[in-house]
Amino acid sequence: MPNPTSTAASYPVDATNKVRRLRERAAYDHDTIHALLDAAMMCHVAYVVDGQPFCTPTFFWREGSKLYWHGSSASRMLRNLSDGEPVCLTVTHLDSLVLARSAINHSADYRSVLAFGKARLVQDPQEKARALVMMVDRLYPGRTAELRAGTRQEAREASVVMMEIERASAKIRSQGVTDDDEDYALPIYAERIPVRMVLGEPEPCGRLLDGIERPKALAGYRGGRSLQDALTEAHAVTFPPSE
Amino acid sequence: MPNPTSTAASYPVDATNKVRRLRERAAYDHDTIHALLDAAMMCHVAYVVDGQPFCTPTFFWREGSKLYWHGSSASRMLRNLSDGEPVCLTVTHLDSLVLARSAINHSADYRSVLAFGKARLVQDPQEKARALVMMVDRLYPGRTAELRAGTRQEAREASVVMMEIERASAKIRSQGVTDDDEDYALPIYAERIPVRMVLGEPEPCGRLLDGIERPKALAGYRGGRSLQDALTEAHAVTFPPSE
Repeated sequence: MPNPTSTAASYPVDATNKVRRLRERAAYDHDTIHALLDAAMMCHVAYVVDGQPFCTPTFFWREGSKLYWHGSSASRMLRNLSDGEPVCLTVTHLDSLVLARSAINHSADYRSVLAFGKARLVQDPQEKARALVMMVDRLYPGRTAELRAGTRQEAREASVVMMEIERASAKIRSQGVTDDDEDYALPIYAERIPVRMVLGEPEPCGRLLDGIERPKALAGYRGGRSLQDALTEAHAVTFPPSE
Repeated sequence: MPNPTSTAASYPVDATNKVRRLRERAAYDHDTIHALLDAAMMCHVAYVVDGQPFCTPTFFWREGSKLYWHGSSASRMLRNLSDGEPVCLTVTHLDSLVLARSAINHSADYRSVLAFGKARLVQDPQEKARALVMMVDRLYPGRTAELRAGTRQEAREASVVMMEIERASAKIRSQGVTDDDEDYALPIYAERIPVRMVLGEPEPCGRLLDGIERPKALAGYRGGRSLQDALTEAHAVTFPPSE
């Protein structure tokens, strides 16, 4: 939730990230923004090639004030990013549909973050090796150590992009139905319909060797649980909050 | 599913929308692309202001080969769109997490669409009035007729953006676990974890007048149902497929 009286660290606000409409929904503090990022695994990254904007869905994760993402789905962009290109990385959680008594007050509850910075390919071998571990372990703590080791060829083919968050804003609506005062007197039905991303029952690979059990570290990913909760928990295990 | 042998109508392919990596996951035909769009209500729109890309989540809907979206959340963009500015509108459905036997084969099942075109503010009064009806009725068929009528002031304040889809591509992965052939012999656990957006039980507004019942037209939005299914069904009611 936005906490305008928080004294915690915040991202700087300027013309790029200042929320212009419905400012009461805005937040800029690290705690709010990081929590929304860490509850997601998919983001959308906007970048520009020759004046044409692209909006690419990809897998990402946060470490401190750095965002990393899987670059192969942004191959167009990567060819242009050697010097650091401006991008906007966005995460959106949809929480409900809101049916009001007038069209204008129909809405949705949601929580979103826009993060701005300059994207660079991760090329330093040590930083890249670490990122390729975190790409898996961010979701499944400790899993890389249990896998078939990665090869040099795989490391070459993988691409990871990094962006230091320069500016960011969160926008949160969590009001449910809010009608104009006089409209509550009208004989019109109104409601909020919650929505959430839910995990189904895990489906073991049909070609598992005999006796291979599901690792206990995956217990957070269980059928019926909110994906956001599982992701938040896994992130906190792999990247323990600093004191 | 992509159907490369389909003879159905497709969007033209050029350097902007051609899928470069993992081309076997690509589709360009109207049926595939429209179905993925109509199963969503949230999109992310990428646009450029003074060289800075923005990625904005917003509510949208499709009518034929036109996409409409709620423009107030893109106030920065709207000031720049009088002539039609290039944008990329993206929809992503996440279907599962995929845990393989090697890091490189960790993945996700997903279905996404990137749609390209030039965005314009809807300014013609009749087109705008119709769009403001569809903005509600796309989700809740026939609902506008039951609501408190919109005012001229509300119509002035609302903003709707329209884009004719010029190019588009879909990308679909639905493979679950796919490991390198030799890795299946390893004693490593692998699985697919399905995820989906699910509706919760609708929560009636606490200030409903006595005797106000939930309209039967909302029956498609019931607790436990997939949001995608409810959205697809509602879209087909409001915009019946042409013969």
